[in-house]
Amino acid sequence: MSHPLFERHRALLEQALNAIATRGYWSAFPESPSPKVYGEGMPEYGKAAFDALLNKPFPVALPGTTGTIGAERSPYGFPLGVTYPRVDLDALFAAIAKAEPSWRKAGPEAWVGVALEIVTRINKRSFEIAHAVMHTTGQAFVMAFQAGCPHAQDRALEAIAYAYDEMRRVPAKAYWEKPQGKNEPLKMEKHYRIVPRGIDLVIGCNTFPTWNGYPGMFASLATGNAVVVKPHPNAILPLAISVQIAREVLAEAGFDPNVVTLVAHAAGDDTAQKLALRPEVKLIDFTGSSANGEWLEKNARQAQVYAEKAGVNQIVIDSADDLKAVARNIAFSLSLYTGQMCTAPQNLYVPRGGIDTKEGHLSFDQVTQTLAEAVQKLLGDPARAVEILGAVVNDGVAQRIEAARTLGPVALDSQAIEHPQFKDARIRTPLIVKLDVKDDAKYLREWFGPIAFTVATDGTEQSLDVARRAAKEHGALTLSLYSTNQAVIDAAVAAAEDAGVALSINLTGGVFVNQSAAFSDYHGTGANPAANAALTDSAFVAGRFRVVQHRMHA
Amino acid sequence: MSHPLFERHRALLEQALNAIATRGYWSAFPESPSPKVYGEGMPEYGKAAFDALLNKPFPVALPGTTGTIGAERSPYGFPLGVTYPRVDLDALFAAIAKAEPSWRKAGPEAWVGVALEIVTRINKRSFEIAHAVMHTTGQAFVMAFQAGCPHAQDRALEAIAYAYDEMRRVPAKAYWEKPQGKNEPLKMEKHYRIVPRGIDLVIGCNTFPTWNGYPGMFASLATGNAVVVKPHPNAILPLAISVQIAREVLAEAGFDPNVVTLVAHAAGDDTAQKLALRPEVKLIDFTGSSANGEWLEKNARQAQVYAEKAGVNQIVIDSADDLKAVARNIAFSLSLYTGQMCTAPQNLYVPRGGIDTKEGHLSFDQVTQTLAEAVQKLLGDPARAVEILGAVVNDGVAQRIEAARTLGPVALDSQAIEHPQFKDARIRTPLIVKLDVKDDAKYLREWFGPIAFTVATDGTEQSLDVARRAAKEHGALTLSLYSTNQAVIDAAVAAAEDAGVALSINLTGGVFVNQSAAFSDYHGTGANPAANAALTDSAFVAGRFRVVQHRMHA
Repeated sequence: MSHPLFERHRALLEQALNAIATRGYWSAFPESPSPKVYGEGMPEYGKAAFDALLNKPFPVALPGTTGTIGAERSPYGFPLGVTYPRVDLDALFAAIAKAEPSWRKAGPEAWVGVALEIVTRINKRSFEIAHAVMHTTGQAFVMAFQAGCPHAQDRALEAIAYAYDEMRRVPAKAYWEKPQGKNEPLKMEKHYRIVPRGIDLVIGCNTFPTWNGYPGMFASLATGNAVVVKPHPNAILPLAISVQIAREVLAEAGFDPNVVTLVAHAAGDDTAQKLALRPEVKLIDFTGSSANGEWLEKNARQAQVYAEKAGVNQIVIDSADDLKAVARNIAFSLSLYTGQMCTAPQNLYVPRGGIDTKEGHLSFDQVTQTLAEAVQKLLGDPARAVEILGAVVNDGVAQRIEAARTLGPVALDSQAIEHPQFKDARIRTPLIVKLDVKDDAKYLREWFGPIAFTVATDGTEQSLDVARRAAKEHGALTLSLYSTNQAVIDAAVAAAEDAGVALSINLTGGVFVNQSAAFSDYHGTGANPAANAALTDSAFVAGRFRVVQHRMHA
Repeated sequence: MSHPLFERHRALLEQALNAIATRGYWSAFPESPSPKVYGEGMPEYGKAAFDALLNKPFPVALPGTTGTIGAERSPYGFPLGVTYPRVDLDALFAAIAKAEPSWRKAGPEAWVGVALEIVTRINKRSFEIAHAVMHTTGQAFVMAFQAGCPHAQDRALEAIAYAYDEMRRVPAKAYWEKPQGKNEPLKMEKHYRIVPRGIDLVIGCNTFPTWNGYPGMFASLATGNAVVVKPHPNAILPLAISVQIAREVLAEAGFDPNVVTLVAHAAGDDTAQKLALRPEVKLIDFTGSSANGEWLEKNARQAQVYAEKAGVNQIVIDSADDLKAVARNIAFSLSLYTGQMCTAPQNLYVPRGGIDTKEGHLSFDQVTQTLAEAVQKLLGDPARAVEILGAVVNDGVAQRIEAARTLGPVALDSQAIEHPQFKDARIRTPLIVKLDVKDDAKYLREWFGPIAFTVATDGTEQSLDVARRAAKEHGALTLSLYSTNQAVIDAAVAAAEDAGVALSINLTGGVFVNQSAAFSDYHGTGANPAANAALTDSAFVAGRFRVVQHRMHA
């Protein structure tokens, strides 16, 4: 019952299965956007392919098309001009219903083989997709390439591997022979079929359409479900290309391409809600605001909802050997993609009495100042700065910076920078505001964007307590600690495990708290309000299928 | 880091892990209530232990006790007279909060070792628990022993094995080394901790307190959660003994016994709702009515709810080699425990034009008559009949029989039988009523108890279509087919997979549609409204814990 696409990618799958079992470093898709790795001419070819998509209808034919839609605008300051089919949902779901039976019956090796072929083909279009990611999210090109392409593809492969690992543990059949003393034993033949749940609705976000969208999409495809991809209205293109590739592979493999469809829609309409309440939708993968995530959890009761929502990421600074190395690391995490990562730190807790370092005791203000200087140094050269910062994704971020400036003493003001290449791009550097621990109404909420607070606490014990409670009550994807004291490190580990948040300890080199590596770092835990699932563990995949048995006398 | 109790039961666990991987016949706990198996004198010893519990306070000391409660009445016609501590919930949860930290930190091998020790110790008290099951559920003694003790213990062990199998796949730590071209590689050390979700509320049912209660209870214990057991007000004793044993084992192993607690309460009060809405409760395992299950799913939003609810179980009769063998098998399924099993068949679809058998074509009425005669023959000897039927669990069942008698022509009336030993026991035989397929308002709901309908359909195609839609819309735990036609069998398999219901085909021997064997048969699928989970698959355990990591430079 094996499938040719499963055989084609069997070695890749085996490597991925080994990686999730050991969780050391492994990556299937090279992160270097170099022609030496991806082939001569590929960067130019991908750029040309992206340019060729602009200012015209996107080449995908979808059932139930009633017109066109699309108003994406690059954060670098120009409209993409791409339009997409606007689809009638009843007609779309009727077409999906026709596509489902043969897909559902194909079985795990076909599902996994097709999913792996899609991912590897997406990899080959990484340069094109990187430009699409860049001009929908505002990420600088290298980050758009790495996070939007190979890293996202690794996350997709990881989800496929977890799905296969769960499915392969269900035997296809069993022979059951129960002794009956001196009588003939009872003999039964049993068959166990993996049955997909139904349709997965993947709701994409503006900032990481592929990285956050692929895991659910590929976990569901690999378990035999159909997938409806609903991108954010300003980040359609990267997912539209991905859907296009998926439909090509499905058709080539003899399946109805409507197993994977795209619903593009206008900002502010109720398409997401209408989709989420369709009785055919049995799974929802969502990344976005807490309000929208909670609406789904409360109302889309016919579906299992995997939701990544808002949170408050935090750094506890207790002590340091080399505060400048600490500050360099933190400065990069505050600056990367203008702090618009769901994992970017926001609250930096520092004892109001200062901290011990190898240069001696430094006051709260000195610590804040060292951080501010590190950010200034990192971003001192505008040409280099824009390659770290990327562009501001939407007006909300800019407005939020203005609001945050009034919350307390500004230790580092946010600056506007001109982009040497895109004159209408909006580039902003991080803002650092000093607060006191008693200002919890100010800092215990998410300030999405390049906004950080140094918060003066009574001491590290209080810092850890505030961080622990904030993660439990408001959610958090990351927690970071700097300390030279093993007892403090142990206390931070205990606090992180209590709050269900991933902890990074004393990061001073080339690893940053806001980066999480596929096959090794769990992104989210499912154990605090920031996310009800992790990328990726067995709980993320085990509910996407059911086992239905039939039995008879043998 | 291994635990002595884990080492003690390692061989048992290995066997269980092998069983869930292959799903052939395996059982850890012998089902024969024989002194040859369980030891000379054990039946009498267990009976005496049960008798010693009657008419006095149950020997368990619980935190927050404010008085006593308990009004269980044996379906065999006498009050048990056992009282239990009535607990104040705030005080109880405060005590659980104190018990949790050391338990949560103990880790998978301690959790699994303690859980296995509890199950094996429960097994040693099987005769005592069997009497408790008999006199709370109304099951006849042998069934109370088998289903309530070894089979339930097997289901507990199965849940523990699945839990361990998921947890062991998360490595405790990893070394991550990422190449950096000509530069030094990035080197990180990562630690992954299994973190339990919180408190599991196990809501027991009246008919199968242990069989339905143990899987969730032991899946949660084995993943480090605390467990609050809330039995049905008329089936407290079997779970109270189980909780007592769990607390003994916990204390002996150096843990706070309040990791497992009991909340007994009066019928009709709001204890279940109050418990379900406690913020500390993160998991709920429920068996009971659809109304209560749906209330939990809608309102206990802080918790993951595993619910087994009502359904409509069905048999499609298309054709048969030996209709008498078919009828004998069905008669037993209709009669066993007075049809009070969640898996017992209710609707029997037969073509109105009759069916082909090796004795020739038999009309709808002849098929119905053959079934009625098989039930009469099975239950002809009252002394034997009561050992199959057991007793009526509550007034609702008796009232439902009266209501069902008026729905259509009665093919077999329900009879009252006297129990030779318990003169006040209420024993009723099955009722069979003839209906037409158009009477769907009558038969497309659960008639819990010894109530069956033969439903005349236009033919097997319609029978399968009605069965498929009924399972999808109203839920079903079992579907059964009798056919000599391979095309019909294939159509039934497809219908069962579409409706997400387990299918039994041509059962004529000693295996019955309402019986499901641990380690081999999945009980429920999670794919139709009768249950949102299966006993047991990976989805039943994977969400009971989370993984929280910490990482640092290596």
